[in-house]
Amino acid sequence: MTEINLTPEMELRLAKVRARMSADGAQAVLLADSSNIYYISGRVFRGYIYITLEGEPLFFVIRPNDLRGSCVHQLRKPELIPEILSSHGLPMPSSIALEIDDLPYSEILRLNNIFGGATPLNASAMLREARAVKTAAELSLMKEDGVRQAAAYSRIPRIYKEDMTDIEFQIELERVLRLEGCLGYYRTSGRLMEINMGSVLNGENADAPTPYDFAVGGGGADLSLPVGADGRTMKPGTTVMVDMCGNFNGYQTDMTRVWSIGPVSELALRAHEVSRKVLRTLEREALPGVPVAKLYEIAMDIVVANGLEKYFMGHTQHAAFIGHGVGIQLNELPVLTPRSRHLLEADMVIAIEPKFVIPEVGAVGVENTYRVTPSGLECLTNFPEEIHDLLQ
Amino acid sequence: MTEINLTPEMELRLAKVRARMSADGAQAVLLADSSNIYYISGRVFRGYIYITLEGEPLFFVIRPNDLRGSCVHQLRKPELIPEILSSHGLPMPSSIALEIDDLPYSEILRLNNIFGGATPLNASAMLREARAVKTAAELSLMKEDGVRQAAAYSRIPRIYKEDMTDIEFQIELERVLRLEGCLGYYRTSGRLMEINMGSVLNGENADAPTPYDFAVGGGGADLSLPVGADGRTMKPGTTVMVDMCGNFNGYQTDMTRVWSIGPVSELALRAHEVSRKVLRTLEREALPGVPVAKLYEIAMDIVVANGLEKYFMGHTQHAAFIGHGVGIQLNELPVLTPRSRHLLEADMVIAIEPKFVIPEVGAVGVENTYRVTPSGLECLTNFPEEIHDLLQ
Repeated sequence: MTEINLTPEMELRLAKVRARMSADGAQAVLLADSSNIYYISGRVFRGYIYITLEGEPLFFVIRPNDLRGSCVHQLRKPELIPEILSSHGLPMPSSIALEIDDLPYSEILRLNNIFGGATPLNASAMLREARAVKTAAELSLMKEDGVRQAAAYSRIPRIYKEDMTDIEFQIELERVLRLEGCLGYYRTSGRLMEINMGSVLNGENADAPTPYDFAVGGGGADLSLPVGADGRTMKPGTTVMVDMCGNFNGYQTDMTRVWSIGPVSELALRAHEVSRKVLRTLEREALPGVPVAKLYEIAMDIVVANGLEKYFMGHTQHAAFIGHGVGIQLNELPVLTPRSRHLLEADMVIAIEPKFVIPEVGAVGVENTYRVTPSGLECLTNFPEEIHDLLQ
Repeated sequence: MTEINLTPEMELRLAKVRARMSADGAQAVLLADSSNIYYISGRVFRGYIYITLEGEPLFFVIRPNDLRGSCVHQLRKPELIPEILSSHGLPMPSSIALEIDDLPYSEILRLNNIFGGATPLNASAMLREARAVKTAAELSLMKEDGVRQAAAYSRIPRIYKEDMTDIEFQIELERVLRLEGCLGYYRTSGRLMEINMGSVLNGENADAPTPYDFAVGGGGADLSLPVGADGRTMKPGTTVMVDMCGNFNGYQTDMTRVWSIGPVSELALRAHEVSRKVLRTLEREALPGVPVAKLYEIAMDIVVANGLEKYFMGHTQHAAFIGHGVGIQLNELPVLTPRSRHLLEADMVIAIEPKFVIPEVGAVGVENTYRVTPSGLECLTNFPEEIHDLLQ
């Protein structure tokens, strides 16, 4: 048996959601998506969380059958929710927000009918906004992720063996991450990211375009999952970019580092240093109140001043962002695009990933996860940024 | 650059989809879900597949940008589809089917508006039905999965070390599977399954109820992913149930085997033999034309005759099915429940998993993946079914 009870941390998160509800005119929110259930309740269950502007939230739990607590109501199917509300003397809401960007069409229709069928408001957007600014407890979990992800990456020089394929290299790295406590599973927003434990991009494979919303691609091992390592041998003169799963506790950090097999071209080394220069500049400039679009502009100016734009964020295919929020999901708000309308806020957590794909060499660049603070960015993924040679 | 062209295999699959379209009165189907895109085109891309009752399908590709072929049309956004149809002299369909069980509400609204806003028909259901009966090419991929999954499982006795935790055991097994070519990633239907590469259930942890739609549970390593191994040491007198990822090529087999640490109770051994008896019986009885609900009934009769129903498909929490279709997704049609309305058809592929959770010992039972043939079930997961003692 497991107890869930209302904690001060939960109240903090509910207050953020309620601020969005008030702004959007929602009397109630009904959540069912795992990421949002976990955000509010601190654990995943199958069922629904019902939040009104005041009072305790109601946790309607279908499975598991052993959850208890003041908010918990065991439920067989969502059609029984009105009955439970009425038995608590609660009115049916006149406007409800549902996760219209996360739940399938047919599921939203079913839930919406239970609440009278008026057009639902967008709970997905409300929760994404609420989750963008982290609490102290969330920040502390993400700091732990950064430390553990760095510990796993520190073992990379011992993993590499001559004539290894990129997939063999990735498999050993997956093992090291898992032994460090990595849960292995990525939560992402939307249906445009599919991957197993992250991405290892070796040599020219970094230039293979992918269908997915990742910064760089890779052909993958199979046409059913065309992303990441493709089984080629790691050859001298190329780089290997490591961008693996940083989820150790339900939250995650996102961190990319590059190693080389022997020396690599001047162009590759220069592009890598430009990536670091972008990070150093943004670490100072990314202050609360600054438009997120401005970060993209600053990065692009540095890249163009160095004449590297044709390699930036891909070569055969380009991605139109330089970073993204991160937390429970890999791709949270804000998204660092030129079209972003967000302003930075203190305690947002963003991953910045200025990456280059250099033909014949591979991918270079650094990705760090940062907390936004009043004095600039605080790095959560502290690990040497230089390209180290795996042959040395 | 990659070519996609119409192949006889693709025509075979299109014919199955068109049969469903005719039955449901759909003039056109628009697919966007990865599993369905892969099913029709043989690879994953971001974009849409547009199918009418006659003529070539149209592949509208947003990413990657290097796909070519007679069906391929590069697309920036779905709003441009009507223009492309018109430029090919194709009329707008008067009825369209969309993946209303797979795509988010807001995405279906957007797509549906492009096609005039009439209520969309259910392409999710059409594709699930079409995919339930496999082609020879699909069966051949799934046979390969069974062989490779069995090869990985055969290394389990060498993986086990005394006083290992279940998570350490699972990590070594993940590595062995990956080295065997496992892609690691599970495709599932719906949003009620989250897991990393499968499930290892050791001892009493098998009785921890999970929120997810898996046959048995496990508390998991973290409340953000409450399923599977929970980090406990593997102790004498308990079982370890292994139900790991069988996806080596975009298709997958589903296979469960049990090992013991030292001898286990008579009750556990007896329940395991009852599971095998259920499988032997169903292997004979599961013929084309037999109602799927009947399989559940036969299994339940055997379980009840042996007085084991309180341990069947869970103990603290029970699952109400004994198996499921499998293919590109882990949970395809038909679902082996008492309420199923499906009849078995030749070349359906089903995983049957009569499992028991025995308090203080753990989970027992066998899961095999089978092809339905006119003379009974053909097993695709051939591997010894007995409980072997890891200490011997």
